[in-house]
Amino acid sequence: MTAGLKSVSTTDRLFSLRRLMAEHNIDVYVVPSEDAHQSEYIAPVDARREFISGFSGSAGCAVITATKAALATDGRYFLQAEKELDSNWSLLKQGLQDVPTWQEWTLREAEGGKNVGVDASLISASQAKSLSEKLKSRKGGQLIGMDINLIDRVWGSNQPVRSKAQVRNLGLEFTGKRFEDKLTDIRKEIEKNKGSGLIVSMLDEIAWLFNLRGSDIPYNPVFFSYAFITETDAIFYIDSDKLTDSVRAHLGALVTLKPYDAIFNDLKSFSQAHVTSEKKVLVTSSASWALTKAVTGIADEDNNTTTTSNGTSSKLNTIKFAPIEFAKAVKNATEIEGMRMSHLRDGVAQIKYFAWLERKLSNPHNGDVGLDEVSAADQLERFRAEQENFAGLSFPTISSSGSNAAVIHYQPEKGTCASVVRDQIYLCDSGAQFFDGTTDSTRTVHYGTPSEFEIKAYTLVLKGHIAIARAVFPKGSSGYVLDILARQHLWREGLDYRHGTGHGVGSFLNVHEGPIGIGTRLQLSEVPLEVGMFISNEPGYYEDGKFGIRIESVVVVAEKSTRHQFGDKKYLGFETVTLVPMCKNLINVSLLDADEISWLNAYHNDVYEKTHKLINDDYTLAWLKRETAPL
Amino acid sequence: MTAGLKSVSTTDRLFSLRRLMAEHNIDVYVVPSEDAHQSEYIAPVDARREFISGFSGSAGCAVITATKAALATDGRYFLQAEKELDSNWSLLKQGLQDVPTWQEWTLREAEGGKNVGVDASLISASQAKSLSEKLKSRKGGQLIGMDINLIDRVWGSNQPVRSKAQVRNLGLEFTGKRFEDKLTDIRKEIEKNKGSGLIVSMLDEIAWLFNLRGSDIPYNPVFFSYAFITETDAIFYIDSDKLTDSVRAHLGALVTLKPYDAIFNDLKSFSQAHVTSEKKVLVTSSASWALTKAVTGIADEDNNTTTTSNGTSSKLNTIKFAPIEFAKAVKNATEIEGMRMSHLRDGVAQIKYFAWLERKLSNPHNGDVGLDEVSAADQLERFRAEQENFAGLSFPTISSSGSNAAVIHYQPEKGTCASVVRDQIYLCDSGAQFFDGTTDSTRTVHYGTPSEFEIKAYTLVLKGHIAIARAVFPKGSSGYVLDILARQHLWREGLDYRHGTGHGVGSFLNVHEGPIGIGTRLQLSEVPLEVGMFISNEPGYYEDGKFGIRIESVVVVAEKSTRHQFGDKKYLGFETVTLVPMCKNLINVSLLDADEISWLNAYHNDVYEKTHKLINDDYTLAWLKRETAPL
Repeated sequence: MTAGLKSVSTTDRLFSLRRLMAEHNIDVYVVPSEDAHQSEYIAPVDARREFISGFSGSAGCAVITATKAALATDGRYFLQAEKELDSNWSLLKQGLQDVPTWQEWTLREAEGGKNVGVDASLISASQAKSLSEKLKSRKGGQLIGMDINLIDRVWGSNQPVRSKAQVRNLGLEFTGKRFEDKLTDIRKEIEKNKGSGLIVSMLDEIAWLFNLRGSDIPYNPVFFSYAFITETDAIFYIDSDKLTDSVRAHLGALVTLKPYDAIFNDLKSFSQAHVTSEKKVLVTSSASWALTKAVTGIADEDNNTTTTSNGTSSKLNTIKFAPIEFAKAVKNATEIEGMRMSHLRDGVAQIKYFAWLERKLSNPHNGDVGLDEVSAADQLERFRAEQENFAGLSFPTISSSGSNAAVIHYQPEKGTCASVVRDQIYLCDSGAQFFDGTTDSTRTVHYGTPSEFEIKAYTLVLKGHIAIARAVFPKGSSGYVLDILARQHLWREGLDYRHGTGHGVGSFLNVHEGPIGIGTRLQLSEVPLEVGMFISNEPGYYEDGKFGIRIESVVVVAEKSTRHQFGDKKYLGFETVTLVPMCKNLINVSLLDADEISWLNAYHNDVYEKTHKLINDDYTLAWLKRETAPL
Repeated sequence: MTAGLKSVSTTDRLFSLRRLMAEHNIDVYVVPSEDAHQSEYIAPVDARREFISGFSGSAGCAVITATKAALATDGRYFLQAEKELDSNWSLLKQGLQDVPTWQEWTLREAEGGKNVGVDASLISASQAKSLSEKLKSRKGGQLIGMDINLIDRVWGSNQPVRSKAQVRNLGLEFTGKRFEDKLTDIRKEIEKNKGSGLIVSMLDEIAWLFNLRGSDIPYNPVFFSYAFITETDAIFYIDSDKLTDSVRAHLGALVTLKPYDAIFNDLKSFSQAHVTSEKKVLVTSSASWALTKAVTGIADEDNNTTTTSNGTSSKLNTIKFAPIEFAKAVKNATEIEGMRMSHLRDGVAQIKYFAWLERKLSNPHNGDVGLDEVSAADQLERFRAEQENFAGLSFPTISSSGSNAAVIHYQPEKGTCASVVRDQIYLCDSGAQFFDGTTDSTRTVHYGTPSEFEIKAYTLVLKGHIAIARAVFPKGSSGYVLDILARQHLWREGLDYRHGTGHGVGSFLNVHEGPIGIGTRLQLSEVPLEVGMFISNEPGYYEDGKFGIRIESVVVVAEKSTRHQFGDKKYLGFETVTLVPMCKNLINVSLLDADEISWLNAYHNDVYEKTHKLINDDYTLAWLKRETAPL
C-alpha cells in the first residue's frame, strides 16, 4: 500500500446511518464537507463527511441512499479518494466528462418522489435553493432541511468535542485598521445597499472584522461565532468562555456579546420587526440555509424566492451581499508590509530547509538516508518555528516524494509514509501563519539525476509560472482570463493539470481566501483583480504513479508602469513575494526564451538580495549563492 | 473635414418623429439597428437607425425622447459616430467606464412611469424581456411592443423599397449536404428537445437549411423569409415572386410555400392547437418579440415567463434552442475544401493587388500618384472579380490611409476620401463572396519609411496574431479564454484595441457568423471551438488621428497532434487559410522570438507554395518571392 493513505471500513457506520434515515423518512442523505460556516478547512468535530466515507481530503460531498453511497471530489483528490474509500463507496470524479456531479447523482437517485435530507446548517442557502428547484422540476421529490444531524447520531460519543480555545485580539501593528473603522465602512455599504442588517457567517470575515484571532480550526486562526451588524448594533455571537478580559476591553461598548446559537432566534424576531419590502437583511452567498430560513421564516426556499437580474430577491427577505469578503481581500499598507515580511522570514526558513535537505541526501549511501516525508516536514517546521511572529502552519505540509508527489493534496503519515531519496522528485507545498501574514508556497526539487521528461515537465510548468508572474493586464481583468497563460506551454505538449492556478491568500487568516482566483471556474470571471490583493501562482503537472511537479509562489497585485495607457486605464501585474529559489537542476534552459531567463535571473537575484543577510551559516549561504546565481 | 464621413441634419426628422410619438402616447422611442431577423448587415429599406440619427455604422441603437436623442455604439465606431452625428444627438460610448448602456439611458429617461415604445419585430424577445423587467423594477413605466414603425412613417415615400431579387439554389458541390438531410437532423434535435416545432428567423440559417442563396441584403447572400419546421411540415415563408421554377423543383414536395408575413397567424393557430406543457415551440435567442408574442398569445413577456436554470420557460410556450446556428458553424468536408479554395483565389487577388499598389506608389513624385482609397479598393475588386466563382464582396472594403486607418469600420466615399500615398500606413480590410466560400482578411502595409512607433505597434499586433495562430488548447476551450493571447504583448506596453479578436465566418454566407468568437464578451465563454469551425484572427492597434493597424486572417479549427493527451482529451488549434504576405517593412524582427519567426517563415512559405503557380506575371511573382522570403 502506498504510504500515508489507508481506507477505513464504513460498513457499520453506513448501517447505522441507513437505520436513522429510515426512521426519519429520508431516502437520500447528503453529507457536505463544510461546517455551519461553509469553512473549507474544518475542526475535527465537523469532519462528518470524512467519518462516514473514510475520505479525508478537504473537498468533497457524500450522498447515501438505502443501497448506494457515492463520494464526489475534484481532480486534486482522485488518487487519494481511490485509496481511502472502501468498497461501499463509488467515486464521482468531478470535472471528468460523463461523470455526474453530486447534485446530478442525487437527482437521479431521488427520482419518483424521494425525500432528500440534509442538515440545513451545513448547506448554503443558494445551494439548497438550486437543488430544491431541480428536484421539483424533475418530479424527484423534495429537499428537507433538517435541524438535526444524522452523522452526529451515528458518531455518538466518539465524536471529538468542539474547541473552547480562547480568542485574542490582533494589534493595529498587524491589522492596520481599527475594527471601529471597519464597522463604519461596512455600515455605509449596508445603507447604500438598502439593508436593515448584515449577517456575517464566514469565520474569517468575523475574525477580520473584529481584529480577533482564535484557534478553533487547525491551521486557520478563526473561532466559531456569528456576527449581525445593523445601523445601531454590532452583535457578536460567541461562547462567552472564549473571551478574555482583554478581548472584552478591545471590543468595548460598541459590540454586544451573545451566545453562539442565539443568532437564530434573534434573526427571527429581528426580521419580524425590521424587515420591510424596502429594507432587507443582507447575507453572503455562503450563508447557511438554516440562517436564511431564520430570516425568511419559511422552510422552502425555492417556492418563495425570485432572484432578479440584479441579485435581489423580491419575495425573500434577504439580499446577496459580500462587502467584507472584498474588503478583506484588498490588503491595506500595513497588511501588505506584513505579508512581505512574513514571506521573507518564511523564505529564509525554506532556504535553510532545502540546503539542509540537499546536504542530507548527498551522502554516500545512494542518497537514502532514512529520511521520510514526515521527518522532512518536521525539520521544515522547526526552521519556520525559529522565525519571529511564527504562529503555526497554515495547512498540513504536503511533503511528498516520487509518486506521492502526483497526489495533489497528499498528506504523509508517520509509519506509512515514503522515504525522501536523492534520485526522486520531492515536492513540498507548505506554509505558515505569522502574526503579520500567511504564507503558502511549493517548490519541487530533484537533487540527483532527473529524467528527461521530468526536466521537460518542470520547465513547462516553470514557463507557465513565469507567464503569470510577468503578466501585464488592464485593470478590470479577472483571474479567469489569465489562467491560459499558465497552461499554454503544457497544452502545446498535450499536458495539463486538474486544479486552479491560483487562490486568494489571507493576512494571518485562511490560506485559501475568496473571492479572487486564477483558474477555469467561470465565476472567477466576475471578480477583477485589484491592487493589494494577494494570490498564489501555482501551475503544476502530475504523472499518476510516477511524479508530480508544482511551482507555487504568492504574488501581490500591483500597478505596472507601462509606456502607454490606452483607454486611460491602469495596467496591473504581479510582484512575487515568496522568496525561495527554483530548482535549476530541473530546468532545460534551451526551452526558456530570453524574457523568461531574464525574469528568472531577476527573481533569483531578488531572493538572494533580500534573504542572504538573514542567513548566518556558511553552508546555507553558499547553497543560496549557487542556487540563485544567474542561468 | 476628414474624408468619407459627413453629418446629416436630423432636425426635421426628429421633429416629425416626436409628433408621432406624442400621437401614440410614447415618451421614449427605441430604434434598434437590426431588421426583423436581427441581421447585423441590413437592407437599405431597414436602415431606420441610420435614417433617424445620421450614424451609418453597422452597430448601434438610437433612443429618442421629447427633448433628447442618444446614439449608443461600440469602440469600433466612436470616431465615425462623432463625425456623423449632428448636434441633436449625444453619443453613448459603450464599454467606457461610467457611460450608460442604451438600456440604462432608457431606464433613466423612463423614470416616473413613462411609456417606452419599440417596433416589436425589431427587438429580440430576450432583449424585450430584460428591458421590460428592468423598467418595472425601477417603477419606470412599461415597454410597449408596437405593430407599426414610427420611423417608416417619418421616412415616407423616400424610404427605399424592399428587394424582389430572385433566390437560387446552391449545388451539392458547394453545400456538401442535401437540405433533406439537414431537415432530418434538425427534426431529431427538435424531438430530443421536446419541441413541437422550430421557428427559423435568422436569414443565414434559412439560406443554409434549404441550400438557397439570395441577394436581398448587400454583401450577404440571403433573402427575406422565415421557416417553421415541425415533425411533419417544413413551411417556408417567402414572397412567391422570388422563387424560380428551379428553386421550386429543388424544394419539391417536402417544403410548403407560404407568403412572408403569414408566419404570424400560422404561429398563433399552431400554438393553440399543438403547444402543450410537454411540447413547446423552439426559438433561437434572436427571434423577435413579435414572433414570440404570436406563439405565446401574450403581449407582456416579463409577467408571464420564468426562465429556469436549464433555459426552459415554464409558463411561456417557447424554449430557447439554436441547433442550426451550431450545425452551420461546423463546416463539412465540402465546405472546408471550398473555404480553402476560395481563400486561395482570394489570396491570389490580394497578392496581385498589393504588388500593383507598391509599384504604383514607387513613382518619382514622392509616392503621391493620385490614387485614392476608393480607386484603390476598386482595383482590388477588379482583381477579385477575375477569380473563379466570384459572387461579389462580402462587406464594403475598408480601404483606409493614414489617420483613416484608425477608424475601425471606416468606409471611404468617392470625392471625399483620402489619397493613398507611399509614406503613410495603408490598412485594407476586405473580403469576397465566392460560391464555395466567404473570405475576410486585413493587411496593413507601409511602402515608405514607417515611424519607429508604427513598426513597434505592428510587431506587437503581429505577435498577438501569431499567438492565436499557433495556440494549442484542449477540446472544450472557448474563444473567450484564447483572447488574452492576442492582447498580451500590447498590454505589456499599455496598449489595447476596442474590438473582438475574432468572429465566425460563413460559407458563402454572412461574413460575421455566430455563435463562436474570440474576445472579451463573457457569452463567448459558453461556446467551445470545434473542429471545422472558421473564425477570424484579427488583433489590431489604433492611434486616433494618426494610424491604424489590423492583421486579420481566417483560420479553421483543426485537431493538433500533441506528444501527450492529458485527460484523454483532444487538443485543438488553428490552420490559417488566408494566404497573403505580412508587411515585412513594418516588422521589428528583434521583437520576435524564435517560435514567432519560424511561424512567420513557415506561413510565408505556405503562401508562396500555394499561390505562385496561379500568378502569371513576372512582376507580381518577383514581388511575392521577395515578400515571402524567410526573415
